[in-house]
Amino acid sequence: MAKATNNTAPQVGIIMGSDSDLPVMEAAAEMLRHFGIPYELTVVSAHRTPMRMVEYAKAARDRGLKVIIAGAGGAAHLPGMVASLTPLPVIGVPVKSSNSIDGWDSILSILQMPNGIPVATVALNAAKNAGILAGSMIGAFDAGIGDKVAAYKAGLEEEVLKKASKLQDAGHPNQFDS
Amino acid sequence: MAKATNNTAPQVGIIMGSDSDLPVMEAAAEMLRHFGIPYELTVVSAHRTPMRMVEYAKAARDRGLKVIIAGAGGAAHLPGMVASLTPLPVIGVPVKSSNSIDGWDSILSILQMPNGIPVATVALNAAKNAGILAGSMIGAFDAGIGDKVAAYKAGLEEEVLKKASKLQDAGHPNQFDS
Amino acid sequence: MAKATNNTAPQVGIIMGSDSDLPVMEAAAEMLRHFGIPYELTVVSAHRTPMRMVEYAKAARDRGLKVIIAGAGGAAHLPGMVASLTPLPVIGVPVKSSNSIDGWDSILSILQMPNGIPVATVALNAAKNAGILAGSMIGAFDAGIGDKVAAYKAGLEEEVLKKASKLQDAGHPNQFDS
Amino acid sequence: MAKATNNTAPQVGIIMGSDSDLPVMEAAAEMLRHFGIPYELTVVSAHRTPMRMVEYAKAARDRGLKVIIAGAGGAAHLPGMVASLTPLPVIGVPVKSSNSIDGWDSILSILQMPNGIPVATVALNAAKNAGILAGSMIGAFDAGIGDKVAAYKAGLEEEVLKKASKLQDAGHPNQFDS
Amino acid sequence: MAKATNNTAPQVGIIMGSDSDLPVMEAAAEMLRHFGIPYELTVVSAHRTPMRMVEYAKAARDRGLKVIIAGAGGAAHLPGMVASLTPLPVIGVPVKSSNSIDGWDSILSILQMPNGIPVATVALNAAKNAGILAGSMIGAFDAGIGDKVAAYKAGLEEEVLKKASKLQDAGHPNQFDS
Amino acid sequence: MAKATNNTAPQVGIIMGSDSDLPVMEAAAEMLRHFGIPYELTVVSAHRTPMRMVEYAKAARDRGLKVIIAGAGGAAHLPGMVASLTPLPVIGVPVKSSNSIDGWDSILSILQMPNGIPVATVALNAAKNAGILAGSMIGAFDAGIGDKVAAYKAGLEEEVLKKASKLQDAGHPNQFDS
Amino acid sequence: MAKATNNTAPQVGIIMGSDSDLPVMEAAAEMLRHFGIPYELTVVSAHRTPMRMVEYAKAARDRGLKVIIAGAGGAAHLPGMVASLTPLPVIGVPVKSSNSIDGWDSILSILQMPNGIPVATVALNAAKNAGILAGSMIGAFDAGIGDKVAAYKAGLEEEVLKKASKLQDAGHPNQFDS
Amino acid sequence: MAKATNNTAPQVGIIMGSDSDLPVMEAAAEMLRHFGIPYELTVVSAHRTPMRMVEYAKAARDRGLKVIIAGAGGAAHLPGMVASLTPLPVIGVPVKSSNSIDGWDSILSILQMPNGIPVATVALNAAKNAGILAGSMIGAFDAGIGDKVAAYKAGLEEEVLKKASKLQDAGHPNQFDS
Repeated sequence: MAKATNNTAPQVGIIMGSDSDLPVMEAAAEMLRHFGIPYELTVVSAHRTPMRMVEYAKAARDRGLKVIIAGAGGAAHLPGMVASLTPLPVIGVPVKSSNSIDGWDSILSILQMPNGIPVATVALNAAKNAGILAGSMIGAFDAGIGDKVAAYKAGLEEEVLKKASKLQDAGHPNQFDS
Repeated sequence: MAKATNNTAPQVGIIMGSDSDLPVMEAAAEMLRHFGIPYELTVVSAHRTPMRMVEYAKAARDRGLKVIIAGAGGAAHLPGMVASLTPLPVIGVPVKSSNSIDGWDSILSILQMPNGIPVATVALNAAKNAGILAGSMIGAFDAGIGDKVAAYKAGLEEEVLKKASKLQDAGHPNQFDS
Repeated sequence: MAKATNNTAPQVGIIMGSDSDLPVMEAAAEMLRHFGIPYELTVVSAHRTPMRMVEYAKAARDRGLKVIIAGAGGAAHLPGMVASLTPLPVIGVPVKSSNSIDGWDSILSILQMPNGIPVATVALNAAKNAGILAGSMIGAFDAGIGDKVAAYKAGLEEEVLKKASKLQDAGHPNQFDS
Repeated sequence: MAKATNNTAPQVGIIMGSDSDLPVMEAAAEMLRHFGIPYELTVVSAHRTPMRMVEYAKAARDRGLKVIIAGAGGAAHLPGMVASLTPLPVIGVPVKSSNSIDGWDSILSILQMPNGIPVATVALNAAKNAGILAGSMIGAFDAGIGDKVAAYKAGLEEEVLKKASKLQDAGHPNQFDS
Repeated sequence: MAKATNNTAPQVGIIMGSDSDLPVMEAAAEMLRHFGIPYELTVVSAHRTPMRMVEYAKAARDRGLKVIIAGAGGAAHLPGMVASLTPLPVIGVPVKSSNSIDGWDSILSILQMPNGIPVATVALNAAKNAGILAGSMIGAFDAGIGDKVAAYKAGLEEEVLKKASKLQDAGHPNQFDS
Repeated sequence: MAKATNNTAPQVGIIMGSDSDLPVMEAAAEMLRHFGIPYELTVVSAHRTPMRMVEYAKAARDRGLKVIIAGAGGAAHLPGMVASLTPLPVIGVPVKSSNSIDGWDSILSILQMPNGIPVATVALNAAKNAGILAGSMIGAFDAGIGDKVAAYKAGLEEEVLKKASKLQDAGHPNQFDS
Repeated sequence: MAKATNNTAPQVGIIMGSDSDLPVMEAAAEMLRHFGIPYELTVVSAHRTPMRMVEYAKAARDRGLKVIIAGAGGAAHLPGMVASLTPLPVIGVPVKSSNSIDGWDSILSILQMPNGIPVATVALNAAKNAGILAGSMIGAFDAGIGDKVAAYKAGLEEEVLKKASKLQDAGHPNQFDS
Repeated sequence: MAKATNNTAPQVGIIMGSDSDLPVMEAAAEMLRHFGIPYELTVVSAHRTPMRMVEYAKAARDRGLKVIIAGAGGAAHLPGMVASLTPLPVIGVPVKSSNSIDGWDSILSILQMPNGIPVATVALNAAKNAGILAGSMIGAFDAGIGDKVAAYKAGLEEEVLKKASKLQDAGHPNQFDS
């Protein structure tokens, strides 16, 4: 995969508990590149590198990040712990890792945060949506990005309409679009 | 409950599927008042007022909103439908309504959105966290709000330390803090 | 697959959130062809084409439809949203899509509708049963169709009796049928 | 509760596994009275009166019924067994009975019917929605009933708008409706 | 598979909702042949052959059966319906069929029977255990069969001890058996 | 509660993990007294009295018992462990104890036994059904008891018919029974 | 509650995420007092006092602790995070807090730790068992404590035998103990 | 796999319900060899060799064991039953066996032990973590082992840092580590 050179200061930090989460988490980076939002991506493990996690989270705001996207599987503590250490919004991506119980553990460990420390949780393995959500957050204050997010959603509509036409062409009866 | 007069343009729109969700959802408004973020709050039902929902969501960005907080219970379609109609970030609050199956239906209906249309889901009934998350999103671009969110989290630490002292005073052995 | 030409006005509208649901949803069309009920089939996405969905649902009764069959996966909002926009009966088919949590999200998002807006939910992936149920609804008022539904169910009995004979012929002891 | 005298032939049969289900199931009768649809209501147990169930289901179509609403809890076999014995549409209401496991057993026993024998399942305890769904099915062929169902759904919208006004009057900020 | 000729009157009736359940259910027949208990095996579907089911269940006691083993998947009504129509003990085998939700629907539909109509439920797909349980029930009154069941369980112990030796021989340290 | 003196040798042994299970488990004894089947009832804990459990299970067949009913909650090991130590049929009653997770732990710990060691599991808290199931097992070989079980089930039918009449008398429309 | 003065160095550290967990967690302290094991007890929150947690965990081994017992509810990160920061064994107590989803979130967040960082998880709310387990761990190396744990388990047996006698005295038939 | 000769008295006993659990459970042995802790490993089945289990558990403390690791699947009674028969700490490994319901049965059967008899439960299939946990328990009293456990956790950190570098080298933007 070709990766855009990224010299400007990152606005989004993408972190994950293990490099085995990369195939899932790359979709977040891909959406950010689509929106033209500078990001950074690395491995930060709550359980294996707790002090690295503390440093990453504590420095994030001063380093200019606007959003952190954190993905993890099983008893997934990374998103919630990072959220406890920064005032920035943290998006949590529950990853269905190999030893997860159908993803329930990842989801509940990220979603069910106590009062005071929210994590913006997206669907299981939905790193792409994490990237879009980060785009929405930034786009609320940066009109250019906001327009790109709006255009992206309009593009989804186009795709569906094409699929509807394709089904009609394939002979499926459809009086609604006739 | 005393409500602050709110003449400035709202930055956050709090909507809910039914006024029976108000006792849960008011905690979001309370946090926004704490952060000094202007908001609005009303009832918008995906199923009973679908066209009102469409209008609300479509107008939101142009009306100056930066974030929408949407709460709903059972087969909770409001947050996801609003997210499909606006480029703004949408925070979903799963409400454990009376006919919900322990909240699982609300959670999954809000969290498990398809690719392209994320909802930032918080814990069951966690409207307070929705308010804090909205504060974080705004605070990432408005340093004054960002400082208030940071101060709020620091305040949580203070509370815990006081409780630890209180337990020690009550006679629970504690050499760590001695 | 050969598709019957279908010039008469459709009585059943089959819609689905994505063309990836087609392999599941075609079984509904197949049953309707079996009963000789005219239908139409297209893609309508609650989240990617919300306005198309509104138009489809609002026009359905006047266009002469008697039943709508809507299939969707994950946080499946299509059946419930359509039901909120039409007085026609809506049959919901929970689809076990690739990112679904074993289908639980699809089922609960479709089934657990609030008071006032029912969806007639069938089993996970049970588009065939959605077609039969539509046949039953129409057959309650159109005796010819009603007879075909009755004949279909009688045919199921025949198949089971043949299988029972086949097992007996294969040497499995069976004094009940002797 | 006052009950309308009901001399005309019933179009809907409401049955339930036990009279302990009556407090839940009465809401279906209430909606049918609201729509002016004649109905009948009695106790038919799949497990305690299996032959009564067979007779009820087999006679239903010839007796002029158009829809059967069947409610049951726990291992709820009544809706599915009735559906196997009649070509009429059967609406199943999962009842959260005292010994049910949070309603999961009732839901799955009614919803997960095999190919060939659908049950139109509504939400847990949602007998009101069963009545509305029966109204929709009949209203698809009886325009007067169809109009009443449409009016009922429009009435829900009115209620929500009133609630929105009430919240605004109570001081909740709301620029959308201003 | 060689099947023993079985001229004597069957003591156990093995029935299943579909011949697709046969690969699972054959294990019950195999155990009964091991114990020398005459049985019969056929297809009886609650939903597709309801009247055959009624006849089978009503005739069972007079035909000399002592136990009925009934296997079914999804919304599995066969074991419970048979139990409602006979005073004989009915063993239910939840089958994880292709459209089952991980087997939960089969288990709950069979297990959660209402007061008055028990089904002796065994583990998911555990037809072998259904055969052993039938052997136990008969063996409680027929000492020869009872001895065979006891011998079977003793044989399980032998197998485990051999496996323990094998592990030790393979070099796994084991001072307990030294 | 009056308890019948019980001098004859017990045919059924009712055991439970704790005397806190007695309010649930007494219903089994009540059904056995109804059928006139001699029984015994005591506390045997798998975890707190493992050797008592071993002795009870090993002696059961020689002491003349025909069936063992074992109730337990949480990680409920009693029914399965007893089944491993006796060739008699063991009926397991999952008890929803105070620290149980909605009964799921009790159900799965009793139901999901490995190949070779079945437990005849009944519904959550369904000790009454355990008593009836024991009656069925004994009644398969003792015609007098078998007749009582048949009569009991017929009595259930009577009760339902009375309830149907009562509903009709209360004014609920019912043309089926007219 | 009288609390033993505790001047000796603690061997067990009991920590909890909130003082609202104290009513549950005190049972651990009670068992440790029963065994005569010195302990300390305080509030340490993973999310509200992350740096206090880091310090507590990092200092624990050098301060002479042998075991840490950590209780938390919801997305319960305390036990796992502490385990990542100390080589000592950590016992996790899932607490069913008010906003927990029946305790599933607490259990999975504590239990499903990734490879490398185990938490010794006990049952929901089972702080008493956490105390006993800590006693077992220490008792494996301190024979006096080991004897006390053995005596405690023997005492459980005594209690059950007394309850069995009591049931027999109350008239429940029991030939096993006669 | 090469296995270290192991002449010294074992400190940890690894047992499992079936040799089919060996591929999972070997990871515990591997970790113990890594820490240099002598162990033994054999098959002990709660259900098929109940008396072997009793003897193993009763002898364990006198034989010098410090910890028992017990793995089992389905209705997994081995860890809890062993815990009821020894004062030693017992670590339970839920195994996702072929007939398990996604592992839920194994987890709940091991975790949800009643008051008085704890089992230190680790994640599904997490035998490696069971070995590390045993190392932590022993390392709390044997400083050499404790140091090895600490070193092992530090090694995990090294691995993550290497992976982070590798991602950076592969072109993923990362200003945090620059």
